[in-house]
Amino acid sequence: MNPEDTIEIDDTLEALKQALNRDDLAAAGGLVARLPISKTLDELERLNDRDRAVLYRLLDKERALAVFERLDPTLQSELIQGLQDSDVAEVFDNLSPDDRVGLLDELPSVVARRLLLGLSSRERALTDAILGYGQGSIGRSMSPEFISAHPWTTVDQALEKVRRGLDDAETIYTLPVTDAGRTLVGIISLRDLLRADPLKTVGEIMVDAESVRATVDEETAARRCADLQVLALPVVDTENRLLGILTVDDALRIIEAAESEDAARSGGTEPLRRPYLSTPIWEIVKSRVVWLLVLAVGATLTVRVLHEFEATLAEVVVLTSFIPLLIGTGGNTGNQAATTVTRALALGDVRTRDILRVFAREIRVGAMLGLLLGALGFVIAALIYSPDIGWVIGLTLGGVCTMAATVGGIMPLLGKAIKADPAVFSNPFITTFVDAAGLILYFLIAKAVLGI
Amino acid sequence: MNPEDTIEIDDTLEALKQALNRDDLAAAGGLVARLPISKTLDELERLNDRDRAVLYRLLDKERALAVFERLDPTLQSELIQGLQDSDVAEVFDNLSPDDRVGLLDELPSVVARRLLLGLSSRERALTDAILGYGQGSIGRSMSPEFISAHPWTTVDQALEKVRRGLDDAETIYTLPVTDAGRTLVGIISLRDLLRADPLKTVGEIMVDAESVRATVDEETAARRCADLQVLALPVVDTENRLLGILTVDDALRIIEAAESEDAARSGGTEPLRRPYLSTPIWEIVKSRVVWLLVLAVGATLTVRVLHEFEATLAEVVVLTSFIPLLIGTGGNTGNQAATTVTRALALGDVRTRDILRVFAREIRVGAMLGLLLGALGFVIAALIYSPDIGWVIGLTLGGVCTMAATVGGIMPLLGKAIKADPAVFSNPFITTFVDAAGLILYFLIAKAVLGI
Repeated sequence: MNPEDTIEIDDTLEALKQALNRDDLAAAGGLVARLPISKTLDELERLNDRDRAVLYRLLDKERALAVFERLDPTLQSELIQGLQDSDVAEVFDNLSPDDRVGLLDELPSVVARRLLLGLSSRERALTDAILGYGQGSIGRSMSPEFISAHPWTTVDQALEKVRRGLDDAETIYTLPVTDAGRTLVGIISLRDLLRADPLKTVGEIMVDAESVRATVDEETAARRCADLQVLALPVVDTENRLLGILTVDDALRIIEAAESEDAARSGGTEPLRRPYLSTPIWEIVKSRVVWLLVLAVGATLTVRVLHEFEATLAEVVVLTSFIPLLIGTGGNTGNQAATTVTRALALGDVRTRDILRVFAREIRVGAMLGLLLGALGFVIAALIYSPDIGWVIGLTLGGVCTMAATVGGIMPLLGKAIKADPAVFSNPFITTFVDAAGLILYFLIAKAVLGI
Repeated sequence: MNPEDTIEIDDTLEALKQALNRDDLAAAGGLVARLPISKTLDELERLNDRDRAVLYRLLDKERALAVFERLDPTLQSELIQGLQDSDVAEVFDNLSPDDRVGLLDELPSVVARRLLLGLSSRERALTDAILGYGQGSIGRSMSPEFISAHPWTTVDQALEKVRRGLDDAETIYTLPVTDAGRTLVGIISLRDLLRADPLKTVGEIMVDAESVRATVDEETAARRCADLQVLALPVVDTENRLLGILTVDDALRIIEAAESEDAARSGGTEPLRRPYLSTPIWEIVKSRVVWLLVLAVGATLTVRVLHEFEATLAEVVVLTSFIPLLIGTGGNTGNQAATTVTRALALGDVRTRDILRVFAREIRVGAMLGLLLGALGFVIAALIYSPDIGWVIGLTLGGVCTMAATVGGIMPLLGKAIKADPAVFSNPFITTFVDAAGLILYFLIAKAVLGI
């Protein structure tokens, strides 16, 4: 089915919603069977809890499993708690070990423990192997179900091993190559195996393997998988022994979640960790209120600063008019620098030890921007008000831009250095700081230039 | 080699830099051969133009190709312009058609034309097939080199076709299934082919195919590939005829680029489209200055508003002290809403037609946040200053939060509706608007409560 046949699909969706509204489950079941998986996923992510549970139970077994393993862990956890115990056990058993651990992290610990006990001993061992790694490390998101080969096996034997692993392995398309001590010594793709002379050994045709340690954080590992454009990346321990494999589809999922988190943080909210429309209002408020309060408390600094300079303001009232423009421009310049550097950090283009290079770049960028905006501000303010006011505005703009870009550029790096999320130390945080510092600069310049 | 052997690799990198500095190319060549591809990539992305070209030419042919196809198109374009014509032709010929088109978009048109003429007729035809689609559409990023099967062929015949396509196809792991008229009718994985009885037909074991139209924008297509957790997604025309295939590693690349663009835009800058440390200072200034000017011009609105209320401010100077706090809180609330909705739009969790639902949610979230912050603001300002000032601050905070969340929430949707990038209409834009509107609200409330 072509999912771009939107008219037909929209009709089906509309009919489905009506059927759900009038509780006509038979009709709804028939309709949902006609939707492609991608649309069923979209729909489930947009419904409220109750309707989501109803719709999910209408799916036939195969589609239900296909849909379930593609849902966010938070939604999985809610769904599973509404299902019958026997269904739960089946769904849980069918998940791959890494997805299972993702779900376990979301479930109440009582439920999680009960589910773990219900697993077969093989599945339990696989799950335990991942559960041993810290949350957020790639060890937790890797799959322990890989097919590996030894350098001395023939291509033919390796292909035979692939055939035996068809049902269970996370991927059959990339085979890490290990020596007798499980040490990673190379990697080979199924494509290369198929292309090679069946009597050659794996050692003859394997290539150098890039890998990540299990303790590395999952975003770093996923980005490396992306940079290398490989379908799978072996995960190893400190001794370079093979532990598992990170597949590109899991890397994609990790990157999307990391991006959501960064976007939320640099917008001054906590990540929702679930689709927007299916998030209860109260959860959204919770994700925002703490940051808003922290920033408001930070902003009381500006109240203090302005209170300090009340006499100056009373003398030259026109200075007030420029306050939002000046601190706004400072905030914008700071945000620009912070956004660029936070992004470069996320992509691995910049590391904490580059702090001096970043400082040197941002101070120059800030000075150039300051010169430009300052000159413009001077001309406009001088023409409309007076040359004196022109000087105050121009100099302040120049100083604020330079300071803001520099602070904005190095703040994410400092955040990362103290092991905080760089995005937290970014935009709103910088705005608050730059606001107060900019005001002080403004009044110092005003006092000096105007002689008050 | 294990890339986590960081000490050894760091030593190699240090020695490499020193060798480059003293122009000892022989030593540098020996050192670079010991680096894994991922580190070589990192290094190339951090060097300036000249050193990058030098280092690249030191790579042996195989590594040079492997590195080249993983670089950003902007860097590819700069590198290729520094190479000899014969080398260029070889590099260009070795790229897959979709990567080739990505590079062509970056090259000066004279160079691009010359390179196209140098291609073999087969490669030229493949490249032309993609060049026909608009920039930013998935048609341009798909690969036309796929292996497909017909429903009536046997599993054995399909496997034979895979073997014949081993060298050229973009992927051999996912086979779209088409009828005699090239219409997409299903899809099958190599894993399922290997698992099946060789005498069965493809039609018996294929599954329903999800697909995207070639004209769909590349981010939407890549996100669908991610949502479905598939290794490849067929790309079709309006008649559902198969045109090409989008592989998950290309999807990942598209998503990373889209995220970089969104992050930049919501931070009020243009995306750099190349690694931060290798971007010339002047390019960074250019990426920021236009937005900074636009926002500064927008901010003159606040100068106008404050000028209008100068008499009120002169009468009650204390009102000035709260200006940055109030507009700051408004800006933060607006940014939070805009960030959340922009992200939901990017992920496909929210569509433009959900505007009323988003409005209804954000107005409630904003009102709840406003009630909370307003009550707090009332108490603090009433205690420190006077109950009257308390009322002004409390009511303004309540109003500003409600307004900011609502505007912040629907603005990205309006932006998308008029086909602009939602991220552009987001944070800095909203801050500017909310600043001016917040000030007007502040003074209206102050006048009413204080009776001035």
